Amino acid sequence: MNLARMGEIRLLDWIRGRAGGVGKGLAVGIGDDAAAFRCPPGKTLLVTADMMMEGVHFDLRYTTPYQLGFKLASANASDICAMGGAPLYATFELGAPPETDSRFIERLFDGLIESLGLHGARLAGGDLSSSKGGLALSMSMIGSAKKAIRRRGAQVGDGVFVTGPLGDAACGLEILKRLGRPVRLEKGGRAKWEGMKRELLEPLIRRHLMPVARKSPSKATAMIDVSDGLFIDLHRLCTESGVGAGIYEDRIPLSDGLREAAERLGADPLKFACSGGEDYELLYTAPKGSGRGFLIGEIVSSGLYVVGPGGRRRKFGPSGYEHFRG
Amino acid sequence: MNLARMGEIRLLDWIRGRAGGVGKGLAVGIGDDAAAFRCPPGKTLLVTADMMMEGVHFDLRYTTPYQLGFKLASANASDICAMGGAPLYATFELGAPPETDSRFIERLFDGLIESLGLHGARLAGGDLSSSKGGLALSMSMIGSAKKAIRRRGAQVGDGVFVTGPLGDAACGLEILKRLGRPVRLEKGGRAKWEGMKRELLEPLIRRHLMPVARKSPSKATAMIDVSDGLFIDLHRLCTESGVGAGIYEDRIPLSDGLREAAERLGADPLKFACSGGEDYELLYTAPKGSGRGFLIGEIVSSGLYVVGPGGRRRKFGPSGYEHFRG
Repeated sequence: MNLARMGEIRLLDWIRGRAGGVGKGLAVGIGDDAAAFRCPPGKTLLVTADMMMEGVHFDLRYTTPYQLGFKLASANASDICAMGGAPLYATFELGAPPETDSRFIERLFDGLIESLGLHGARLAGGDLSSSKGGLALSMSMIGSAKKAIRRRGAQVGDGVFVTGPLGDAACGLEILKRLGRPVRLEKGGRAKWEGMKRELLEPLIRRHLMPVARKSPSKATAMIDVSDGLFIDLHRLCTESGVGAGIYEDRIPLSDGLREAAERLGADPLKFACSGGEDYELLYTAPKGSGRGFLIGEIVSSGLYVVGPGGRRRKFGPSGYEHFRG
Repeated sequence: MNLARMGEIRLLDWIRGRAGGVGKGLAVGIGDDAAAFRCPPGKTLLVTADMMMEGVHFDLRYTTPYQLGFKLASANASDICAMGGAPLYATFELGAPPETDSRFIERLFDGLIESLGLHGARLAGGDLSSSKGGLALSMSMIGSAKKAIRRRGAQVGDGVFVTGPLGDAACGLEILKRLGRPVRLEKGGRAKWEGMKRELLEPLIRRHLMPVARKSPSKATAMIDVSDGLFIDLHRLCTESGVGAGIYEDRIPLSDGLREAAERLGADPLKFACSGGEDYELLYTAPKGSGRGFLIGEIVSSGLYVVGPGGRRRKFGPSGYEHFRG
């Protein structure tokens, strides 16, 4: 290991200090065999986990270590929020090639801890390991909820809501691939592409690199986060609930940046919105009058379809429109 | 991904069925954004995590997927037990090369779930991912304890105890390296090496491949599991407690198998016992009359030393005897 023995101990000490110690119900933090915490009284506890592998989930050609850590924590927090909960504690496991610079690892932890902090959550433990391949990142997160909101529970007649615009993350990734280099948004770095205005361009890139998990809405009957795309995640929610859904194309929220960037890319913004992943908006069902956010459709007894502007219905499945399939 | 879409969904369904669903306080298991569970009343909760990387922590030339899963769960359970707790729920994150056979992954889950079952613990969630490098395994485990037993807390005058013989796992690994092939102990496979009796040989190999976490003793003042070796782990416990320790060489429990195998290897069995890792015995301190297991020494105000059979004291540090160091 190039993160030699003393280097590793110093790094662990640094992490221990950076993570902020005990408090907020955490009685034992990093540095023992396990962390210990008190149960928030009357709450249901939640646990989720996400893994991010180099070359599969991220590419160091256009992401910084800070952004990596930030995103992993956000992806986990989004799963907790999608259950109607709030994040509390996380463990982080890192496999890194021995030649990895300890500064790289420190920046990764900086992003991770900042992202946790947005939810008032703490790093409680984890594991550091050498890797013979690329980077392997894994996080598990514990949260609490008054009541767990599941994917099942949607009722016929419920409205289908999303907490914000869709497609930005997938479009941002497409732009990053064309730029072919990292954009250090966390350090006030500026993105330039095709003469697009900064205030329209950067949110797209930020949504891919440093998404922020959305807080849970109240009164949801069923919920999921949009991690793989609207079509696939709505399909999952409906399958678990034993229902169908119809959504209105012109109600799917699209950002101005997405519309403009899609035009420059010669792409359909709705394709990013319906089939692009990693927006980490929450997709949920609720009685129509009670939901906040964007009402994009309604729950029906069976089938999945999109209603176009002219009233034309097109069926879709997890991988896209049905007539696009073989 | 060669674990193609349908293959992955089928595998997830298989895992969901294999994991055994809800119950034992688990209200939502695998298949939602997060698992949900109720807090055991009046308990402290514990969380720990361990990562195992191919080529660093294991070698598929002499371990089977079943043994891999079994060991990862045991390593995590051992951390929970070392805090005075009992395992409850685990999440498991797997990064696997796309060409990995789904049968390999199923056997890995079989071992993992069997090991969890030994502690009455359940698989509650996780993540499956493709990997561009080798296998990356990560698990986090939640447990509960009446009171968390920490590494700190050892008092001068306390006895130093271990729950069982040390050195078997490291010796078993050495034998496996010489055999250079897996030994399918989980399927009743038999190990043969140097004419050693099966009943002496197999426990060494089993301790390396399929260790079983030890249940927590009561009345410990401080505790740690022996994952990296007696010297290094006792050093950690003493550092955290702000004390020293003296141990008696002739009280360190050694199995008959270890003694015989070490002789055939031309090695010192005490070297395996003091510096070999992964035994997953618990090392703890307690008032001398109250501990069960093997009393190997006592807590002193400072320094770490071993008392030899002739009464000679030798100082040691985390990496071995002090006079062996530069």
